[in-house]
Amino acid sequence: MIKVGIVGFGTIGKRIADAVLLQKDMKLAGVTAHSYNYRIVNAHKRGISIFSHTDKDNLITHGIPVAGDINALCEEADIIVDCAPKPYGMENREKIYEPNNIKAILQGGEKAHAAEVSFVAQCNYQDAIDKDYVRVVSCNTTGLARTIKALDAAFGVDFVRATLIRRAADPGQTKKGPINSIIPSLELPSHHGPDVRTVLPHIEVFTTAVIVPTTLMHMHNLSVVLKNGTRGVEAEDVLKLFEKTPRVRVVHADQGILGTAEVMEYARDLGGKRSDMMDICVWDKGLGMHHGELFFVQAVHQESDVVPENIDCIRAMLGEEDAEKSMALTNKSLGMKH
Amino acid sequence: MIKVGIVGFGTIGKRIADAVLLQKDMKLAGVTAHSYNYRIVNAHKRGISIFSHTDKDNLITHGIPVAGDINALCEEADIIVDCAPKPYGMENREKIYEPNNIKAILQGGEKAHAAEVSFVAQCNYQDAIDKDYVRVVSCNTTGLARTIKALDAAFGVDFVRATLIRRAADPGQTKKGPINSIIPSLELPSHHGPDVRTVLPHIEVFTTAVIVPTTLMHMHNLSVVLKNGTRGVEAEDVLKLFEKTPRVRVVHADQGILGTAEVMEYARDLGGKRSDMMDICVWDKGLGMHHGELFFVQAVHQESDVVPENIDCIRAMLGEEDAEKSMALTNKSLGMKH
Repeated sequence: MIKVGIVGFGTIGKRIADAVLLQKDMKLAGVTAHSYNYRIVNAHKRGISIFSHTDKDNLITHGIPVAGDINALCEEADIIVDCAPKPYGMENREKIYEPNNIKAILQGGEKAHAAEVSFVAQCNYQDAIDKDYVRVVSCNTTGLARTIKALDAAFGVDFVRATLIRRAADPGQTKKGPINSIIPSLELPSHHGPDVRTVLPHIEVFTTAVIVPTTLMHMHNLSVVLKNGTRGVEAEDVLKLFEKTPRVRVVHADQGILGTAEVMEYARDLGGKRSDMMDICVWDKGLGMHHGELFFVQAVHQESDVVPENIDCIRAMLGEEDAEKSMALTNKSLGMKH
Repeated sequence: MIKVGIVGFGTIGKRIADAVLLQKDMKLAGVTAHSYNYRIVNAHKRGISIFSHTDKDNLITHGIPVAGDINALCEEADIIVDCAPKPYGMENREKIYEPNNIKAILQGGEKAHAAEVSFVAQCNYQDAIDKDYVRVVSCNTTGLARTIKALDAAFGVDFVRATLIRRAADPGQTKKGPINSIIPSLELPSHHGPDVRTVLPHIEVFTTAVIVPTTLMHMHNLSVVLKNGTRGVEAEDVLKLFEKTPRVRVVHADQGILGTAEVMEYARDLGGKRSDMMDICVWDKGLGMHHGELFFVQAVHQESDVVPENIDCIRAMLGEEDAEKSMALTNKSLGMKH
């Protein structure tokens, strides 16, 4: 039974806590609260142990029992999943996890050098086995890595160009903008391309990015040059590949799924907690070959696609050597396509 | 066992279908499909019988077995919940339900005269007992009726003024606007005030309304003149009343719930299907007395607050005389505040 502590209980932390609770080989040691809020109230009502990070008195004043400080959580747990906003993951590693001699997962907002290795289960599970500090890459990088890895394994990939159309904020975030502007990344490539190479080092990938006023999902428009040209690879072959690729879901235009709003509505109908869509969604009609290049469109649920990666990463760091076994357990427990 | 048929499988229909499946005294006879789409594909995968309304060949072409037409559904069911968009409910009553001699619930988009009586469980459950055609009022009217009824029962209500700030579209609807305009209702009062009087006929209520570019919830800003003045009624008394009122939930500003985005995020954390919030949410800090009038703010989840009303309405129309019993069953089965 792996005892997992969660530091930070926001968008990602609360989801990983729920995912840990669904794993038969894991136990949730507790979560840290940065402040008093509805997330913590709900976690407390559900019987989750709350540890204080910076704001102990405020929690106690509001009637939330505090099981201890962050060091106490480190004592209770075998591993910490750090879900603090960047760049506090790196700081927490130095100030808390290393002195407490505890393994920790950092999230993708941290720099790659903050951990020993970066991680996407389908790409490089083996690299994380028995490691002490691993970084699960960001939602966008995870999305790119899943589909590019599948293409590379099946056909070989020479070069990837991708334009990322990014959501501006998460649905519950009301202080971030813009509400009526498109903001380009003025760094070329955007950081996502180099980040993909932390888990798929041999892939040439160049990304550009913009931010648009939506909260629902990111969208990626990709063009992929396959190795030695397409050699008769048809759009249909790529769709078949994606249909059998775990954590990638082909969505169908003729079912009325025509944008991120419908993908999220579809996720609500599927009935997962928080109406999350942890699979990367590729459109059947948004995929085709042109002049020997593959073009396709995928949608990435920024709040949840890294959740299964964190679960697999926990197992790898605690010594589970079988990537397929871990991923199958994770996929089934979370109701993902598998 | 009450056999329920659902006509129309959109925002409301799919939710009522799920709610029926959770009732121990009801059975879902089936749902009608207007067209082939992801909602129908998912319903079919879950084993729900699909009946055709207008598009049988298209369903069969796409591999959805069709159990019969809408008349066949009427034969299988004891009651139909009509969730067709307005004004098809009235048309369906005349063309389908009356000839099939079957009871039907119509939704709040229909005119009040389309049914024998309008319905909100907390206001006038008794009026629907054994009726053949009942209209569950709209999401906004339901929201107003729940809180005004509680105030009237506790303190007496002389006059209500309300400004409704309405969501422009549901989250899955991408063809509706506006995306950057505020549209006032140019009908005074807006139709909501008169509609409240279909379930609370003795209440004087005047409403104005605007539409704003959001998909998450409606907001109501109310001022209420209590009977014979406030007579020492304090804000705290009203909050205590709302705290004990079923299907009304007091939300707390100091927990970080500061707008509809956070209410919906809170609903996601609570874990209900589709992250719905069927309770009307009143803010603790958005409620106060000024010059002898009560002012408060409430948020209404347009997609789901009428779902429990439809379930109670089914029971009333089939002869269940105990409103409290029905509402308690409904609240518990749907995970509402109770």
